[in-house]
Amino acid sequence: MRENCSEASFECFRVSQVTCEGKYKQSDVPRQLVYGTMVYVRQTIVADASCALSRAVCIATRYSAVRRQFGSQNGGPETQVIDYKTQQSRLFPLLASAYAFRFIGEWLKWLYADVTQRLQANDFSTLPEAHACTAGLKSLTTTATADGIEECRKLCGGHGYLCSSGLPELFAVYVPACTYEGDNTVLLLQVRDMSCKVSHEDCFSAGVQQETSRYNSLYDSSRAFNAMSLRCSKSALLEAFEARAARMSVACAQNLSNFDNPEEGFAELSVDLVEAAVAHCQLIVVSKFIEKLQQEIPGKGVKQQLEVLCNIYALFLLHKHQGDFLSTGCITPKHAALANDELRSLYSQVRPNAIALVDAFNYTDHYLGSILGCYDGNVYPKLYEAAWKDPLNESVVPDGYHQYIRPLLKQEIRTARL
Amino acid sequence: MRENCSEASFECFRVSQVTCEGKYKQSDVPRQLVYGTMVYVRQTIVADASCALSRAVCIATRYSAVRRQFGSQNGGPETQVIDYKTQQSRLFPLLASAYAFRFIGEWLKWLYADVTQRLQANDFSTLPEAHACTAGLKSLTTTATADGIEECRKLCGGHGYLCSSGLPELFAVYVPACTYEGDNTVLLLQVRDMSCKVSHEDCFSAGVQQETSRYNSLYDSSRAFNAMSLRCSKSALLEAFEARAARMSVACAQNLSNFDNPEEGFAELSVDLVEAAVAHCQLIVVSKFIEKLQQEIPGKGVKQQLEVLCNIYALFLLHKHQGDFLSTGCITPKHAALANDELRSLYSQVRPNAIALVDAFNYTDHYLGSILGCYDGNVYPKLYEAAWKDPLNESVVPDGYHQYIRPLLKQEIRTARL
Repeated sequence: MRENCSEASFECFRVSQVTCEGKYKQSDVPRQLVYGTMVYVRQTIVADASCALSRAVCIATRYSAVRRQFGSQNGGPETQVIDYKTQQSRLFPLLASAYAFRFIGEWLKWLYADVTQRLQANDFSTLPEAHACTAGLKSLTTTATADGIEECRKLCGGHGYLCSSGLPELFAVYVPACTYEGDNTVLLLQVRDMSCKVSHEDCFSAGVQQETSRYNSLYDSSRAFNAMSLRCSKSALLEAFEARAARMSVACAQNLSNFDNPEEGFAELSVDLVEAAVAHCQLIVVSKFIEKLQQEIPGKGVKQQLEVLCNIYALFLLHKHQGDFLSTGCITPKHAALANDELRSLYSQVRPNAIALVDAFNYTDHYLGSILGCYDGNVYPKLYEAAWKDPLNESVVPDGYHQYIRPLLKQEIRTARL
Repeated sequence: MRENCSEASFECFRVSQVTCEGKYKQSDVPRQLVYGTMVYVRQTIVADASCALSRAVCIATRYSAVRRQFGSQNGGPETQVIDYKTQQSRLFPLLASAYAFRFIGEWLKWLYADVTQRLQANDFSTLPEAHACTAGLKSLTTTATADGIEECRKLCGGHGYLCSSGLPELFAVYVPACTYEGDNTVLLLQVRDMSCKVSHEDCFSAGVQQETSRYNSLYDSSRAFNAMSLRCSKSALLEAFEARAARMSVACAQNLSNFDNPEEGFAELSVDLVEAAVAHCQLIVVSKFIEKLQQEIPGKGVKQQLEVLCNIYALFLLHKHQGDFLSTGCITPKHAALANDELRSLYSQVRPNAIALVDAFNYTDHYLGSILGCYDGNVYPKLYEAAWKDPLNESVVPDGYHQYIRPLLKQEIRTARL
């Protein structure tokens, strides 16, 4: 556990011993056991990611519906900014991510319970993979969440910079999650250590991730996927993600085999390994989102909306990483263009329910702590009230203006008391 | 000027009139003139971007050379984190960007002077293109700089989160540049309005951007570029960037022509237009970097290092946006892989001079305001000193611990005074 030597050794002490002479004595308990706590902590971090991202998305979505700018016709009201395609293309994938991370958080919770149960029966077989999985998903979700909160702030325009928007503090408090409990880049290298072992040595048989074992069928395939099916069928989409992850992984393994010294190869190709790990983790999130939708979901029309969000999440990733999909031959440029058209149409489908989908997070105004994201949408009077609370507004001319600032502005600097 | 109606109308007032009856009277001065000030302000913002990014890069590069982690062999010192390929792949493109933005800032300064001179001779011909150019480059450089500062903070690990690293404040003070003087996304739409006019109507003949007029030769070409030449020759690289920008622009124009109502088409395809605008602006930065290197550059070996940085900048963008290059057929997957290998080798070439390249910015420790980035590299004793200045460290046990925190921890909450 390179990035976590301090945590790992601390954990070790619970099962190992130090003699009275100060000598360290390794215990008989398998080393893997010490990873159990890490798995627990990281799955908690993934659950928190969904929570933080959904707060930011709730604020940005509500304010995007309140805020109007440009596009007035015949003196009518201006356009709600949520109706601009550029706004939708930045906001709705984050909304979809907030839901995706919630489901992956639930799955990791199940995974941890499963691993714990197996450990009690002295079955350590799934622990390494569970460890790699939580490491990768911690990295993926915290990076996306930190970036997503900042993007939500920008989506609120100048008002997002206000303290009373709630977003600057949310970002500042959240962003260390990218660094603590394992730096996000280093964690991805661990996923890849694991995944390359799988694809390179083929030594892996059963495991918690069905994806891993399905890789074999996707290795040598050079066929691209049917364009129309990418648009209509989740299984075609999933297969494209599987093929991309598998082929990137195989390409890494092949390049690694050109090095005499494997350690040197890992160091030299670490950037490619990180990219392959991201592909692998995105596959897991997409597949678990799709699995979730195969279950029964209560509430009329809810499942339908989640289907739209699931497609947005997958197609947004496909567009963002189309270089991966194209270079591995998983899709053709024609598919990429069709996927893009489909994405645009999905944004229109989610638009009428966007507010309901963030209301569904069920956050109180007190918890959100954001004037821009208040439930009743009565933003501007509340902003005005909040501005009065700024100490700078206690007097018409702020303290120090006549003494310090005015002389500077009037270039009377020599006689100023500065 | 949709996003800047307030600024534009303010500017208008200098040349327009309001009568005593309160009636607005348009002046005879061409409307374009009011954009002159915007061009000036935005070119200043581009110059500032290079300054802010180079500060962050200076801090992160110096600290990456000081900080050692893992990789100790036979009890020797651990590896400097700057020697990890993952660190290099995140840090060195930012170093290259800091230089690229400096050169594009110089060019924009020249462009503004040129436009001003023409305006005095009543020549308004280049103003619209200069306006689109500065709008796009303001967007490109401020987005990259804000993201880059935050990336530099992450590259410093947990210590980057410290106030004394200087990076959190640098980010907080810089990031509004993405929103003020024209929101970055809206600005890109203006570039595209302009560029689509060019490629769609072909009405454009001469202008300040030679790139624009060269588009014609790249329109219908379906050939990809020679893989080896991409690695060795700047002109091949430049041509790939030109072809990508041209083909994305043409694709947009073709898709737009499917709409009966052009306004509706622009709204519907705005996301694609933004991506095409980014491609166009990146082309400008790459081409001006290459132009700079055709001039004489004093100092032994300096030009050689700048050549390496120029290649890193271009190939990093090519890798990051390989989806664009692949889907437009400008490169093949084989080229993409070769470009990636080349990038890795360039990182090794820049590594020995990385510190010199940030020292060259010539920032004093006082100006940098960062313990992690101090010139003498004596980071840890200085961090310790700074920690003593934290009011929390004035006493061994901070105020309030016994009163409030301990009871919570010891679950004596009922008897606590909270």
